[in-house]
Amino acid sequence: MLEKSIVNKYGEKFSEWFEWIIREAEIYDYGRYPVKGMGVWLPYGFKLRKHILELIRSLLDETGHEEILLPLLIPETLFRKESEHVRGFENEVLWITKGGQEELDVKLVLRPTSETALSYMESFWIKSYKQLPKKYYQIVSIFRYETKMTKPMIRVREVTTFKEAHTLHEDFDDCEKQVIEAIEIYSKFFDELNIPYIVIRRPQWDKFAGALYTIAFDTIFPDGKAIQIGTVHNLGQTFTSVFDVKIQKRDETIDYAWQTSYGISERVVASIIAFHSDERGLLLPPNIAPYQVVIIPIPHTDVTIFTSVNEYCDKIGSILLQTGIRVYIDKRDDVRPVDKFFEWELKGVPIRIEIGYKEIQNNTITIFRRDTMKRRTIKAEELLHEIKRDFDEIKQNISLRALNWFKSNIKTSSKFNEALTIVKNEGGMVLLPWCGNENCVHAAIEREEGVEALGEVLQGSLKRLNIELALDDVSCAFCDKKAIAFIAIAKRH
Amino acid sequence: MLEKSIVNKYGEKFSEWFEWIIREAEIYDYGRYPVKGMGVWLPYGFKLRKHILELIRSLLDETGHEEILLPLLIPETLFRKESEHVRGFENEVLWITKGGQEELDVKLVLRPTSETALSYMESFWIKSYKQLPKKYYQIVSIFRYETKMTKPMIRVREVTTFKEAHTLHEDFDDCEKQVIEAIEIYSKFFDELNIPYIVIRRPQWDKFAGALYTIAFDTIFPDGKAIQIGTVHNLGQTFTSVFDVKIQKRDETIDYAWQTSYGISERVVASIIAFHSDERGLLLPPNIAPYQVVIIPIPHTDVTIFTSVNEYCDKIGSILLQTGIRVYIDKRDDVRPVDKFFEWELKGVPIRIEIGYKEIQNNTITIFRRDTMKRRTIKAEELLHEIKRDFDEIKQNISLRALNWFKSNIKTSSKFNEALTIVKNEGGMVLLPWCGNENCVHAAIEREEGVEALGEVLQGSLKRLNIELALDDVSCAFCDKKAIAFIAIAKRH
Repeated sequence: MLEKSIVNKYGEKFSEWFEWIIREAEIYDYGRYPVKGMGVWLPYGFKLRKHILELIRSLLDETGHEEILLPLLIPETLFRKESEHVRGFENEVLWITKGGQEELDVKLVLRPTSETALSYMESFWIKSYKQLPKKYYQIVSIFRYETKMTKPMIRVREVTTFKEAHTLHEDFDDCEKQVIEAIEIYSKFFDELNIPYIVIRRPQWDKFAGALYTIAFDTIFPDGKAIQIGTVHNLGQTFTSVFDVKIQKRDETIDYAWQTSYGISERVVASIIAFHSDERGLLLPPNIAPYQVVIIPIPHTDVTIFTSVNEYCDKIGSILLQTGIRVYIDKRDDVRPVDKFFEWELKGVPIRIEIGYKEIQNNTITIFRRDTMKRRTIKAEELLHEIKRDFDEIKQNISLRALNWFKSNIKTSSKFNEALTIVKNEGGMVLLPWCGNENCVHAAIEREEGVEALGEVLQGSLKRLNIELALDDVSCAFCDKKAIAFIAIAKRH
Repeated sequence: MLEKSIVNKYGEKFSEWFEWIIREAEIYDYGRYPVKGMGVWLPYGFKLRKHILELIRSLLDETGHEEILLPLLIPETLFRKESEHVRGFENEVLWITKGGQEELDVKLVLRPTSETALSYMESFWIKSYKQLPKKYYQIVSIFRYETKMTKPMIRVREVTTFKEAHTLHEDFDDCEKQVIEAIEIYSKFFDELNIPYIVIRRPQWDKFAGALYTIAFDTIFPDGKAIQIGTVHNLGQTFTSVFDVKIQKRDETIDYAWQTSYGISERVVASIIAFHSDERGLLLPPNIAPYQVVIIPIPHTDVTIFTSVNEYCDKIGSILLQTGIRVYIDKRDDVRPVDKFFEWELKGVPIRIEIGYKEIQNNTITIFRRDTMKRRTIKAEELLHEIKRDFDEIKQNISLRALNWFKSNIKTSSKFNEALTIVKNEGGMVLLPWCGNENCVHAAIEREEGVEALGEVLQGSLKRLNIELALDDVSCAFCDKKAIAFIAIAKRH
């Protein structure tokens, strides 16, 4: 049962609430498996994850990405080839040193990401500009030996849902175009999921190990902390030069190819849970809900009547199924309707249908909407029309709630100290005008424990959020120079 | 280019042929990744694998199986709990001993299979007979430190496509029913893929480590060697008693639950390649072919005409797409049609459509069938009808070829020595009448290097193959007692 103390997801209790909801809604079993930072996707959670992955797969497939599957294990020799990359990851990889009873000659790393493994293979596959651009992706588990406190789906040692895309290009310009395409794909993806975000260029000290630069998608969780939910890297020729991925160019010269990579993880699922939920539990967008409609037959003391109630439920269920709606008829006979209501509200099913004797007599259907928590009765023949409209309205509703909350947690300030106070007291992100010099921010922020510079906010991202901020005659919040951009600061997950 | 020496897949050159075809058809890149026994699924192979997985998922989902995802890593303490299981696997697991720079307190095993991890979790989840039967499955990578020679998809250290199902039951009888359901599911699966098989009860010395008994699906590869392509285990209470998975039973007593597990791997993909191929390459069944139809525009020197050829191709492509047919229009302008023909024949696309000026003029379509290697021209309006009939005929054709070859490689003999000679000289399986005493076979076969007893052939499996064998008044091929069953012997992969 719901403990009063964790009903509210906002504020400091967020982590506690999060662990409660993923357990109670049977999404992800965490904290019981006897390896730190590893959990189990339960059937209901697995379905949710599946619909989310279908969405990203279709966005990638329709933009010419090809799905592949690389080995999980990377030999130490390969892994150590690119020095900056190794420095970035070597303290957080898991090492296999033994096979059966034998010590291995070459140790193996569980992939923390696949740039090294793939670049090595690309040196065999890619020979000419004619093969480019080439866009690969895979959806796999990756492993990072996190020493910080682990949190389910948010900071884990086995990231079970890592979608990593890797692309190859003829030159820098084409890489830059790919970065823009990747940002566009992730924007569509998060928009479809109604997860609000802001797009930020990470400072150099916080970029991906081996990248020229990193663009990140950040959102804000109910505890007011920012969280990175997607990244896009321009890798330049870092890996292609080390792994000798050479191409013949249009002008017949030979040069190393150029690369980008971009990734998302199960933090996307965590974001859906964080945003699309209220004091009663989850409130899932219809496009990814494991069940879009649940049908509850209302028992009747007269067995004949209850039989026809069940038949009516089946009939309505099959009508919905035929139009491709994911429906579940909950006929459990040892659970009371009120408990079923409670359970499916908690699990976030967008629409509940209740069918009893009254509905049969009047040829009606009673519909309950999870977002408004309101019940209404409609004529049976209007079912499909009404449900489709409900889905649209629910999606809009969910989207608007999330966006409004997100925007209310993005503030601006022209002074660093003021901004710090806001972040520390109220949470959220604060945007500050900035001269563009990273040293300037670094010097100021490195003394502040727990608050970080997320980086330069991309103008296009502010526009998309309808946030208008002027930069004329504004000075940098860290020095006296003219500001040319906004930098975001926040506490982070 | 195709080397003459490996055109023929039959006989000793099979392995060489297999490595050639998976490379040339761009299925799986093997032997270049610098870890023994690990390869890369390439885009075309990944699609083939995907359609096969969709098939097994739908068969499992419609019989009440729920997909989950367990952690990859199992702590040594958990792994060592069931002693028979450990003895079976400890010489072939990979060990993680180090995280970052630290030695781990508890070593971690990369799962060779998930009975231990899941049973541990089930001890939290399952409390009552009311929750049973419970059927879980997952599709994951597993790891086995093979010391024998590795072979792509057939004997690898990373099995990337392990579908493992795990079920829980109230009693032994319900377990037995589940074994039958599992056999039925796999039978449908292999039937749909047109892979012939025989179902065999493994001898005790060859069962899964921890099982009461193991039922296996075996087929025969073109080199005449038998290969296990699926297994079903009745696990009894082996793991539930060790991991304390207790249930309250119908009669209110408490007892350990009962389990089965069953698995298939990428050997399924290997079987499709082994069976559905000829001297020109693959010949894929339409239901799982990455592309079911490929359209090749035939160039014309007149640019206007060639433009309309391409438009006609697009039109036909979209008609096919709309009916859900997977179609690819090969418009590459730097590859000659004859080379495209060669390439798509090698990749096994069941139907090729050729469109040139003639086809536009006459409002016709030229269809080439990969199975018969025959070309014909049809009226454009008959396209869908003709293609659907072709798909049916191709499937029948492929199925019949595979089945006939398989049956011609199953022989019978009443004498062990004769059977040995057949296996050694001709390959294939030989079925021998048998008294049912495993010691009797074991004593005879253990001296014979390279030939193994696969186990007792299930009667139902012989019926399904329309193989009729009488057992009246027949003696055991190993002793003088009366035979009660047939035992299969063969060389094995």
